[in-house]
Amino acid sequence: MDLLTDPTISHLPVVAFEGAKSTNPLAFHWYDADRVVEGQSMREHLNFAACYWHTMRNALSDPFGRGTALMPWDDGSASLDNAVRRAHVFFGLLQRLGIGAYCFHDHDVAPEGDSLAASAANLTHMTSVLSDLQEATGISLLWGTACLFDHPRYAHGAATSPDVQVFAHAAGQVRRALDATIALNGRGYVFWGGREGYTTLVNTDIGRERAQYAQLLRLAVEHGDAHGFDGAFYIEPKPREPSGHQYDFDVESTLNFLREYSLNDRITLNIETNHATLAGKSMGHELRVAAAAGMLGSIDANMGDVHAGWDTDRFPTDLYLTTDIMLVLLEHGGFSNSKGGLNFDAKRRRESMEPVDLLHAHIAGMDTFARGLLAAAAIRADGRLHAFVRERYASWSDPLGRRIMDGAVSLVDLEAQAATSEPVVKSGRQEQLEAMLNDVMFAAT
Amino acid sequence: MDLLTDPTISHLPVVAFEGAKSTNPLAFHWYDADRVVEGQSMREHLNFAACYWHTMRNALSDPFGRGTALMPWDDGSASLDNAVRRAHVFFGLLQRLGIGAYCFHDHDVAPEGDSLAASAANLTHMTSVLSDLQEATGISLLWGTACLFDHPRYAHGAATSPDVQVFAHAAGQVRRALDATIALNGRGYVFWGGREGYTTLVNTDIGRERAQYAQLLRLAVEHGDAHGFDGAFYIEPKPREPSGHQYDFDVESTLNFLREYSLNDRITLNIETNHATLAGKSMGHELRVAAAAGMLGSIDANMGDVHAGWDTDRFPTDLYLTTDIMLVLLEHGGFSNSKGGLNFDAKRRRESMEPVDLLHAHIAGMDTFARGLLAAAAIRADGRLHAFVRERYASWSDPLGRRIMDGAVSLVDLEAQAATSEPVVKSGRQEQLEAMLNDVMFAAT
Amino acid sequence: MDLLTDPTISHLPVVAFEGAKSTNPLAFHWYDADRVVEGQSMREHLNFAACYWHTMRNALSDPFGRGTALMPWDDGSASLDNAVRRAHVFFGLLQRLGIGAYCFHDHDVAPEGDSLAASAANLTHMTSVLSDLQEATGISLLWGTACLFDHPRYAHGAATSPDVQVFAHAAGQVRRALDATIALNGRGYVFWGGREGYTTLVNTDIGRERAQYAQLLRLAVEHGDAHGFDGAFYIEPKPREPSGHQYDFDVESTLNFLREYSLNDRITLNIETNHATLAGKSMGHELRVAAAAGMLGSIDANMGDVHAGWDTDRFPTDLYLTTDIMLVLLEHGGFSNSKGGLNFDAKRRRESMEPVDLLHAHIAGMDTFARGLLAAAAIRADGRLHAFVRERYASWSDPLGRRIMDGAVSLVDLEAQAATSEPVVKSGRQEQLEAMLNDVMFAAT
Amino acid sequence: MDLLTDPTISHLPVVAFEGAKSTNPLAFHWYDADRVVEGQSMREHLNFAACYWHTMRNALSDPFGRGTALMPWDDGSASLDNAVRRAHVFFGLLQRLGIGAYCFHDHDVAPEGDSLAASAANLTHMTSVLSDLQEATGISLLWGTACLFDHPRYAHGAATSPDVQVFAHAAGQVRRALDATIALNGRGYVFWGGREGYTTLVNTDIGRERAQYAQLLRLAVEHGDAHGFDGAFYIEPKPREPSGHQYDFDVESTLNFLREYSLNDRITLNIETNHATLAGKSMGHELRVAAAAGMLGSIDANMGDVHAGWDTDRFPTDLYLTTDIMLVLLEHGGFSNSKGGLNFDAKRRRESMEPVDLLHAHIAGMDTFARGLLAAAAIRADGRLHAFVRERYASWSDPLGRRIMDGAVSLVDLEAQAATSEPVVKSGRQEQLEAMLNDVMFAAT
Repeated sequence: MDLLTDPTISHLPVVAFEGAKSTNPLAFHWYDADRVVEGQSMREHLNFAACYWHTMRNALSDPFGRGTALMPWDDGSASLDNAVRRAHVFFGLLQRLGIGAYCFHDHDVAPEGDSLAASAANLTHMTSVLSDLQEATGISLLWGTACLFDHPRYAHGAATSPDVQVFAHAAGQVRRALDATIALNGRGYVFWGGREGYTTLVNTDIGRERAQYAQLLRLAVEHGDAHGFDGAFYIEPKPREPSGHQYDFDVESTLNFLREYSLNDRITLNIETNHATLAGKSMGHELRVAAAAGMLGSIDANMGDVHAGWDTDRFPTDLYLTTDIMLVLLEHGGFSNSKGGLNFDAKRRRESMEPVDLLHAHIAGMDTFARGLLAAAAIRADGRLHAFVRERYASWSDPLGRRIMDGAVSLVDLEAQAATSEPVVKSGRQEQLEAMLNDVMFAAT
Repeated sequence: MDLLTDPTISHLPVVAFEGAKSTNPLAFHWYDADRVVEGQSMREHLNFAACYWHTMRNALSDPFGRGTALMPWDDGSASLDNAVRRAHVFFGLLQRLGIGAYCFHDHDVAPEGDSLAASAANLTHMTSVLSDLQEATGISLLWGTACLFDHPRYAHGAATSPDVQVFAHAAGQVRRALDATIALNGRGYVFWGGREGYTTLVNTDIGRERAQYAQLLRLAVEHGDAHGFDGAFYIEPKPREPSGHQYDFDVESTLNFLREYSLNDRITLNIETNHATLAGKSMGHELRVAAAAGMLGSIDANMGDVHAGWDTDRFPTDLYLTTDIMLVLLEHGGFSNSKGGLNFDAKRRRESMEPVDLLHAHIAGMDTFARGLLAAAAIRADGRLHAFVRERYASWSDPLGRRIMDGAVSLVDLEAQAATSEPVVKSGRQEQLEAMLNDVMFAAT
Repeated sequence: MDLLTDPTISHLPVVAFEGAKSTNPLAFHWYDADRVVEGQSMREHLNFAACYWHTMRNALSDPFGRGTALMPWDDGSASLDNAVRRAHVFFGLLQRLGIGAYCFHDHDVAPEGDSLAASAANLTHMTSVLSDLQEATGISLLWGTACLFDHPRYAHGAATSPDVQVFAHAAGQVRRALDATIALNGRGYVFWGGREGYTTLVNTDIGRERAQYAQLLRLAVEHGDAHGFDGAFYIEPKPREPSGHQYDFDVESTLNFLREYSLNDRITLNIETNHATLAGKSMGHELRVAAAAGMLGSIDANMGDVHAGWDTDRFPTDLYLTTDIMLVLLEHGGFSNSKGGLNFDAKRRRESMEPVDLLHAHIAGMDTFARGLLAAAAIRADGRLHAFVRERYASWSDPLGRRIMDGAVSLVDLEAQAATSEPVVKSGRQEQLEAMLNDVMFAAT
Repeated sequence: MDLLTDPTISHLPVVAFEGAKSTNPLAFHWYDADRVVEGQSMREHLNFAACYWHTMRNALSDPFGRGTALMPWDDGSASLDNAVRRAHVFFGLLQRLGIGAYCFHDHDVAPEGDSLAASAANLTHMTSVLSDLQEATGISLLWGTACLFDHPRYAHGAATSPDVQVFAHAAGQVRRALDATIALNGRGYVFWGGREGYTTLVNTDIGRERAQYAQLLRLAVEHGDAHGFDGAFYIEPKPREPSGHQYDFDVESTLNFLREYSLNDRITLNIETNHATLAGKSMGHELRVAAAAGMLGSIDANMGDVHAGWDTDRFPTDLYLTTDIMLVLLEHGGFSNSKGGLNFDAKRRRESMEPVDLLHAHIAGMDTFARGLLAAAAIRADGRLHAFVRERYASWSDPLGRRIMDGAVSLVDLEAQAATSEPVVKSGRQEQLEAMLNDVMFAAT
């Protein structure tokens, strides 16, 4: 590897695997990219990506304070030069971390211009820069997207704006972001509808707005088809923030929307942990519901603060969480579209403002996922959990169970059947299973 | 009206309309059944029902304390005599309140026997009693349902049990409860799946369980068709409690489920305020989403405590809430199936233990809904709100808007359109609209 | 009144009282400043203040989008000229609204300089400008404060920073902000500790940080005493945001802190609705707890979104809320220090971006509070609620009750007493009282 | 050990330590009672207790379903014989688990009689039974308490009832429960105020009720003093449920209450994980706040469901949680009163209804705490975390820091100090620390 070296990050080391006994904080202790688990390398299983917005464009401001991040490579200008320098630093960081893919919004990588045309020209320029960097490093594009939530024109929504001219602007932006994604061989394109919702029901027509939104998605799919896009389209659910309610609230509301508008054979889901928890669901729930519906497209890997009611996008360092995610992926043979990955849609805390914290944070997330993979594989190898679940539902493989699911019996038939005996209810053994999983998970790591 | 008079409630008066100036707490101050609003009587608009479980069978216990309710008519036994006495008291209370309909679970009205057959016999007996009471009073059945969550056999779910024999029991119960509903000319039948969910994902197969659940619903619809049921089937969403997660989490997850299993043309929704808020949505949101999908079947009228994380089922006394509910109903021409109603799925506080509190509580709910109806009609008559919303979306009626929704333009076309001008974003005027609504709502009441 | 007229707001009218029948959205329909209620004018009861930060310095950005607010008077620079122009517009808006007081942070009114000294000089300059504007308009300062949360140096806390030099900076800022408050005859000075908390417990020493915080408060009180400040000191509780946990979590945690450090005779509380709800309490609860402890100092008047887990600072338009606030104030004879007021710590929605929305929003809040005052007074005049509560606790005025509270009986005595009879538990009548309050509240308005 | 053998549990084995490689679910894999950690045995560090209510008296009902627990030893009667049999089974279970202490409510162990006197006689009888069992087994009483929330007379509160006669009843019950605790050499006595709060503010006088509550506590302390009680008194905070708001909301509100009524030198806190999370705090926060105030008395060991808004009282199986609890205990040298313990105030899930699940559940909790102890000791032995925190606050040991805390400088002095330099803000390194803790914690276990 020929290391990209912007001088401002030249002091940052390449992060190597040193094993569990290492106390070097700038080394991997668990993520060993070539280690084989269930027949595949960790690199292939985990398929890590980093995001451009949090890594390069998030100065770590919050609603009550300005940014704290030290970014010596960034002169604060909206110039293309500055944008190019950032891109070099970004790829340099990914090289150091051994992360093989990335994600971006149009306005993260290319400065917004004074007009749609100027913005498009900037994006074209940066697409060329990124393309060169991809070639130089072997890093690829997991997915691209357009920022349809920052500009004041999108205050009332982009596709769901009450003003048809705003829809047209959004469409123009999506066109260019999708073209850039195609040009960069992106494996996917994401819709995150932070303004596709409402602040108050008082002035909102939900039915109309959802139909508008479906129309933008349809146009995007048609554009992709017409221009040779062979990546996957995703919606990324989030319940609220910035809006009071977003139409893509969670996995099931998004599936309902896609089914209603017959888009469910073209668009799957990009699921984020912190968005799941804000919607009152566990990540494990959201993943399993999507996987059961064949709609688990990709994952935004982060985690929330239990007591915070907003998106904190912490780097994932909870072993229970990463084990459960990897268990779902192993069970379902990976992502349903074979194009997804684990994108760290995660930011350092505002108090972790030094450049080296970008390494620390990604290392923390990657090691935690590597351990999660090992733990999940251990649970499967152990076999006790799956044997328990299989046995629990065994009666549904009996003739009666099969006839019920085949629709061969009526309520009257079943009442007659039930009259003959009272079922013996068995324990679900939750406590025993949790103790057993603790044993297996942490023995493996 | 020939008043049913169990001696234990003979001291309770018939509640009459006395007008807004009355300070008699045992009179209606706003609910004037025959008053005409938008061409229909209040009685017809509001279509009140009372529920058997909270009114007659809830002793007001909670997880930390036994029941407090004084129920002099109830000897505490599981005898049929006691059940019959309760039914008489129930209809006597409804007569006093002028409530025209009711709802029940099989085991609320009829004692559970030692076997399915014994329970069915009890239910048949009570069906006859209820039929007589309906005839004597003119009170009708809004909907019936089966209790598939109390008995230990349903600990792991009823339709979604891992044990096929439990499914058979549930089917038998549904058969009898549905037959009773048909016999009583019920306008609807409800599924509330309090155990159709999971306590832990560790031992649960979500995909399998949802398929089982769909199968029970299908069998019920087929049974209804085969036995002359012309009422509506409903699912009542609730996110959790008693389970950790219930599959009928909210309106959209239930719609997704019904679409997935092609049940959405046979089953609509019974939506409850407190269940909406527990799912992180406003009642107004849930109602509008269901109405826009043509799936607003019926309403369980209550309200929650903002800070309580469990179902409190308070009587609805918030005028903002009832105004919003009635606004949705007036906008959509009532319930989509013409069979729904406002069922007080509400209980007095544990501290309101006297029989007269049953009157106070229903009066409070009925007067608040009557005022909500008046306020909603006033908002419509005023017209400013609707004019604002119409104007807000006006551009979508322009040629460009129509062409977008017709699919006649592409992203490329829209980009060209957008290049010509920057939209002027207008204020959503939320604060002004809220002030205006305060004016109109409370002037009307 | 000689109206201050920056040309950019000269089109905005003076808002007059036109009465409940007016449909003019730029008039008061309920707030009639000179109307007498319980012996005082509405102006005196309500004692409104506007805040500088949301009114003049909040461009309506959120974590996902830049500002939308149209502010033709603001050239976006950090110049003193721009700051002066803003001050004129601010007082011009308050004059139009008839709001008699205001609140500010040091860096809201005066640009932050390159050094503490430069910032102090700017603040001195603006203090003189504000002083002139106060004199010209009769508008007074409710309270001042220092912004100890925006600058990166406060990332780990201000008083609670692990770095003693940061504490010194905070102390310097407080000194100047307090001096400005004194110079402007401010009636109060507020501490809001948005960074006085932690993001993670892992690197935090709670005990040490709380002691540091107490020390800053003590120094401020001493400085005020030494420099002739006769206003009140307040802490403004908020549970979290921006921190993961803030030490001034809610009323009781703040009282505990003040008691622990013997500051409770010098500092009372400034209580905000949205902060109360984020802490899992109703505003009515927080106010009553503070009032019972003699610690209700002032109020930040706004409201939250029920389902949003962050501070939304909406203008208060809920009549139940404002009635309850005014009921507490009337019951307790106003603020415990006679210096507090109702400060609209509230911002327009990001979608309400036009200058006129500043009028609409304040009108909405002021009219809603005026109606709340009328409703609260009506509840008191009606008398039924208070009679019920008095009767409910009547037994505590019996000899036994008095002897218990005097400590004249022991557990053994009381057991003997209890052995003689079982209490008859009476209904709390919550549903009846809620219906009655609906009657009284809305009849009054 | 002479094993107590009620025949209904004679099939349940004595649970032995078998080590981490054992797959026997009825053995300890980590809890090795005599293993020494930081100079003390695991038994001494962890000081486990089991609770009578969940273990013996909780049939696993919930608000929507009757009990499911199989309890072959319990004939369902309120007889003393049945009560004695339960006590034998309880001690038999504790023996099998090697749990050395227990906790009870008066009405858990002794049937409630028709009168205070009858109840007292039953309690006296059972005290004698328990005393014999203690002697026979060496198991001791961690703490006792009175059930002041189940009986309808306490619907409006016990000490905080509006009816003075109810207070007298509560006092009588406390007297007898405290006497029983004294007779059994209990190390503590707990107040949990599930009804000491309100359902609605409308009919409630908070100030009066809190004063009444303080009075009951004072009487109890006096009774204890007069009757030779040398155990500790505790309040157990919980924010709500069953009430809408409980006065002992959380650690800080309880400390505020105790300080206000000068009870803080006589009463400390019994802190429960699930109550902490319901109050919007982490257990680590609550423990650290209490410990810093010298008020960490005892612990109720359980955990909640993240998304459930009610008390789930799950057995603690989260290693992050138990590690953090044990870290606080090791840091603070154990409980502040030397009398506390880890009481499993935890219940099996309703679906874990077999007697053996009582063993599984306690084993899960005990092993998880044993690992937490090892992990916490490893973090301390490793030393990196504490070195980081010490270094982080180092400047406060400088002369300036000491002078600030000594009150030797003024705001003016500090401003002058601050003018000389801008602090260099250092990273808080949260992500690095979390990765490091993952390494250390799980390497140790």
